[in-house]
Amino acid sequence: MRARIPVTVLGATGVVGQRFVARLATHPWFELAHLAASERSSGKSYSEACAWRMGGTAPYAGCKSRAVVECSPQAAFAPIVFSALDAGAARKIEPEFARAGALVFSNASAFRMEADVPLLVPEVNPEHLELLAVQRARRGWRGAIVCNPNCTTAILVSALAPLERAFGIEALLVASMQAVSGAGYPGVASLDALGNVVPFIRGEEPKVEEETVKLLGRVRGAAVEPAAIAVSAQCHRVAVVDGHSEAVSVRLRGAPSVAAVREVLEQWRAEPQERQLPSAPATPLVLHDAEDRPQPRLDVERDGGMSVHVGRVRACPVLGCKFFVLGHNLERGAAGASVLNAELALARGLVAL
Amino acid sequence: MRARIPVTVLGATGVVGQRFVARLATHPWFELAHLAASERSSGKSYSEACAWRMGGTAPYAGCKSRAVVECSPQAAFAPIVFSALDAGAARKIEPEFARAGALVFSNASAFRMEADVPLLVPEVNPEHLELLAVQRARRGWRGAIVCNPNCTTAILVSALAPLERAFGIEALLVASMQAVSGAGYPGVASLDALGNVVPFIRGEEPKVEEETVKLLGRVRGAAVEPAAIAVSAQCHRVAVVDGHSEAVSVRLRGAPSVAAVREVLEQWRAEPQERQLPSAPATPLVLHDAEDRPQPRLDVERDGGMSVHVGRVRACPVLGCKFFVLGHNLERGAAGASVLNAELALARGLVAL
Amino acid sequence: MRARIPVTVLGATGVVGQRFVARLATHPWFELAHLAASERSSGKSYSEACAWRMGGTAPYAGCKSRAVVECSPQAAFAPIVFSALDAGAARKIEPEFARAGALVFSNASAFRMEADVPLLVPEVNPEHLELLAVQRARRGWRGAIVCNPNCTTAILVSALAPLERAFGIEALLVASMQAVSGAGYPGVASLDALGNVVPFIRGEEPKVEEETVKLLGRVRGAAVEPAAIAVSAQCHRVAVVDGHSEAVSVRLRGAPSVAAVREVLEQWRAEPQERQLPSAPATPLVLHDAEDRPQPRLDVERDGGMSVHVGRVRACPVLGCKFFVLGHNLERGAAGASVLNAELALARGLVAL
Amino acid sequence: MRARIPVTVLGATGVVGQRFVARLATHPWFELAHLAASERSSGKSYSEACAWRMGGTAPYAGCKSRAVVECSPQAAFAPIVFSALDAGAARKIEPEFARAGALVFSNASAFRMEADVPLLVPEVNPEHLELLAVQRARRGWRGAIVCNPNCTTAILVSALAPLERAFGIEALLVASMQAVSGAGYPGVASLDALGNVVPFIRGEEPKVEEETVKLLGRVRGAAVEPAAIAVSAQCHRVAVVDGHSEAVSVRLRGAPSVAAVREVLEQWRAEPQERQLPSAPATPLVLHDAEDRPQPRLDVERDGGMSVHVGRVRACPVLGCKFFVLGHNLERGAAGASVLNAELALARGLVAL
Repeated sequence: MRARIPVTVLGATGVVGQRFVARLATHPWFELAHLAASERSSGKSYSEACAWRMGGTAPYAGCKSRAVVECSPQAAFAPIVFSALDAGAARKIEPEFARAGALVFSNASAFRMEADVPLLVPEVNPEHLELLAVQRARRGWRGAIVCNPNCTTAILVSALAPLERAFGIEALLVASMQAVSGAGYPGVASLDALGNVVPFIRGEEPKVEEETVKLLGRVRGAAVEPAAIAVSAQCHRVAVVDGHSEAVSVRLRGAPSVAAVREVLEQWRAEPQERQLPSAPATPLVLHDAEDRPQPRLDVERDGGMSVHVGRVRACPVLGCKFFVLGHNLERGAAGASVLNAELALARGLVAL
Repeated sequence: MRARIPVTVLGATGVVGQRFVARLATHPWFELAHLAASERSSGKSYSEACAWRMGGTAPYAGCKSRAVVECSPQAAFAPIVFSALDAGAARKIEPEFARAGALVFSNASAFRMEADVPLLVPEVNPEHLELLAVQRARRGWRGAIVCNPNCTTAILVSALAPLERAFGIEALLVASMQAVSGAGYPGVASLDALGNVVPFIRGEEPKVEEETVKLLGRVRGAAVEPAAIAVSAQCHRVAVVDGHSEAVSVRLRGAPSVAAVREVLEQWRAEPQERQLPSAPATPLVLHDAEDRPQPRLDVERDGGMSVHVGRVRACPVLGCKFFVLGHNLERGAAGASVLNAELALARGLVAL
Repeated sequence: MRARIPVTVLGATGVVGQRFVARLATHPWFELAHLAASERSSGKSYSEACAWRMGGTAPYAGCKSRAVVECSPQAAFAPIVFSALDAGAARKIEPEFARAGALVFSNASAFRMEADVPLLVPEVNPEHLELLAVQRARRGWRGAIVCNPNCTTAILVSALAPLERAFGIEALLVASMQAVSGAGYPGVASLDALGNVVPFIRGEEPKVEEETVKLLGRVRGAAVEPAAIAVSAQCHRVAVVDGHSEAVSVRLRGAPSVAAVREVLEQWRAEPQERQLPSAPATPLVLHDAEDRPQPRLDVERDGGMSVHVGRVRACPVLGCKFFVLGHNLERGAAGASVLNAELALARGLVAL
Repeated sequence: MRARIPVTVLGATGVVGQRFVARLATHPWFELAHLAASERSSGKSYSEACAWRMGGTAPYAGCKSRAVVECSPQAAFAPIVFSALDAGAARKIEPEFARAGALVFSNASAFRMEADVPLLVPEVNPEHLELLAVQRARRGWRGAIVCNPNCTTAILVSALAPLERAFGIEALLVASMQAVSGAGYPGVASLDALGNVVPFIRGEEPKVEEETVKLLGRVRGAAVEPAAIAVSAQCHRVAVVDGHSEAVSVRLRGAPSVAAVREVLEQWRAEPQERQLPSAPATPLVLHDAEDRPQPRLDVERDGGMSVHVGRVRACPVLGCKFFVLGHNLERGAAGASVLNAELALARGLVAL
């Protein structure tokens, strides 16, 4: 058994940063070397720097008195870096770590749509890691940046990938019902959330529409050719703590039957399952038979929030097929997504140690 | 000024029945003659028969000590009858009142899809009242039954009607986020509602799909020819008390611009507005400019719950146009809908007094 | 009929400020002369300056295009001024208006505990208005400041006043379950509110404990002698939008029976009822018989949020008597409270016009 | 290592029954021999008999296809029986199992207040197990019944026990804010729970008041002499899924300082900790320092829901000391409580094998 690899968490004090810390504190391959955060927090202990907001867990995941350092390679270098920074900070700080030789696994939106940056979901497009060579060559970095998509997109493409592979997707509509934790803390005001639906989340619909076609696209030379799929997203905030729900309608090539679609979803296994990556669920898509499942309250925490749940697969009078998808926005859609990306990169031998 | 017309409420003790009582207790044209309910309640006073569940109002709307009678024409006849019965009871009881000469305005689903029964929203298809003559002739009733649609459909077609008239609709997808009051009391268990989304409401999707094309269809001889629109509905329950939200995507003939769609929605006025019916809002469709509106908590109670709210009109990459609709499921979608139907029938001279 | 009196709202853009505007836009005695707010807002129209957050009402209460002015007597003087400022701003701005001759009715906590400032609930301690003469003499102001208590206190003392008068109170414990709207907007984070109880509201418990004994105290010379009552408050935030609930246990002199307590509560009428002030409910305390009432969702909006609801009056094995109290924190506890204070002052001839 | 002991769950399909199954499916000492439920369920597989409602867990805890049997000793005998029956069924069925020789650990209220039945919380009153001999002698049973208290009481006495032992309690008031899961499924209607507080839970206040003094009392001969403590409970339902919150004020002998009370609470360890029972948390009372903790959403799931959380210990102007308590109503207050009781009985050698 090899020694565990030191890793850094950038933005360790926020809602996603805490999820990174909780996952990494007990990870079999990684060792939490640095907890980094903004100037306001650096120099404090982790418990002074933030209130622990992850329900049901021992506060601070055993890192209560760890020192928080600043987000610079001088203070916080490690060969693998996880970033929970917001987009503005990420745009400045992530390249500093990549330049210093780190492989940065980022949850931020800053670099997702750059041509030479892999936007990665290990079950969906592991071959996009080819872009790392392009990125290093073009930017002259020893390290690199790998992004995971927006939470809503991550959950959506997890269900789409087997359908794209088996049939080909022509068009899709998705109406999301998103949890408040997706906006961080303090995030959504309770006066907006309680007993309410808010039909707008800033920047969310374009992200879903453009990230989906990059994720389902193919690497052609030095960039990804987006999939030729018409995507339309309508995003809503609902009074749920964790778990994004998505009503999806899709037009598939050859108009397969509902039974054929169900079988493809149920049989789906991909590289993370074959490699038995530590954060990969045994069943990446859980297909529900009960007519009223999945539901956030009952299903979203299963498998550490890493499985994606599909239910109510049925015919759509307009596009051919419709179904309901649920996933954990902070795990499959954020911290767990980045950690799984790092596991895949390591398993593929892409981390220089 | 003419004398007020006696009316009966069937099923007066339930969530919708109480809304009927509250509306009718102060109605300028109608006088609440009978509160009727099941055997369990008849013989009791209204306050003994049920707990008042309508927030913000004086309990029992002044009818606290009114006697509840049984749901038979012998006990509860009036020329106008409002029915909040469930489908099973409605199927038996509503014809008894129609046969006895009453015009029954029903919120139940029992007769909505019968060929000779008008399924009516006064702003949408007032000409369907022509079916009353067919119904009376065929069934040999002196009275008749007029239905309002399911709550989700009522709100949806209110936004679709001006688009169908101005452009023609080819296809539409709707994903609903429905309030718990739509299921009555006790209805949805709190363990299913709190912090949750339930992706299934029994019978709801077929209702939306078939009622919509009947409402937007045309009377041809003795029946309605359904509109030739492909309709697909995905229905979800969310943690909202009152107010159904709907994410709609629509393919319109001629692919009009967003500006053209907005103008049509904003200019929309119909017969209830022209006739200034007492329950008709001055503006049947309220078009919102703020990017995060309408919202159930802020908008659904306006105009006594009778206006329908539209927001976020924008281009849809798949079907051409998408928007968000909100309405009050218990008013525009139930009690208020039936009362407005009765007002239209009376204004058109269809009530025999 | 006399002309309506011009009034100003300070802090008109916030959650309480909007309530003031809605109440005053249609008030029979007052005319909304100035909408004032912070520098960030002044110069804008009211609808540019803030999003309207008061559910169920026409947005901006008809004041959509009114200009917002700055919070200075130069820009916004009126003989009656309502203040929804936060404590810091109030401490500076309210005296400027009082000095300029205005009678300031303040919802802020800044001056509530000053010896010469009446802390007023018209049904509870109207005689405390005597302090106005002291205040003017001591401070050399032509105008004066009158405060309403903290929302939790306002609701509590409304139920205590008749008991203090009829029996005398020796000690009381109150455990509150407070609505999120009490913290304004954005206020409480939804991650703290959804499906949760937060057992702490900064500053709230001391306010309840000290304001209650001032309100129930007597004017002795130039100050109020606090009532000799031991008060203990435990304050909690719950997932309710509007309406503070309070579980109260009280030790009364002479240990009256539950029946005697109920009768005193039910019979309670006070000066605002006698004078039929426009914002005064006919029944200041609504006594509920149903064992599960009052409830925020069902009862808090009655009478424009100005009645206080009491239920479950029963024996307490420790202090003798316990009951449950509910009131609207933004109306009886804030905007409505200040407006009722102004109505009382005007009716008593204390406003110089 | 000894063989695992066969156990039965009565009422295995309900909300508490499922918790029992989940706990026992992986218990180190017990082996789930029989899942028993009402006639409606017996004969079906477990997954046919009920929908799994325990969030975040694999459905049915691996017992999906186990057969459900009827609640009789003939069909479901085991030396240890856990009962999640409702009171009516428990009154009939539990004695049948006790007569047949089983030790029945019951969550039902049916026998809690019988003189010869131990009402047990292992950290609080393990010596009450002495009553088993009395019970067997009096009733002629080979087995016996051991009850855990009502959920609200279980959580309350967990915090009171160290104070009673260290100082003695004279009087206490508790205002509860209880989760909806306490009422089972379907239980509380969502129209009563969403954005609301209901100030009444049938039978709850008397249970808290009488069970508390039995639990804190002493065995005198053949019965428990209740503790001489005046107890007053006010019980409320709030919009929380799992976790009962309780605001407690207490009068202690000798009026100890807040620091002394905190120290007693923090140092508290009892027999389950000394014996390291499998379901016992290492720290039975978790004392929180943060001024806004504990909170249901953040704290209630820790330690499998078996730790009780105390926060905000401070002086009470009326009774001397007040604090806030939180615990998991379905674990520390129901299924986990019964399992811990069985572990204690087994460790003390009271189970005949």
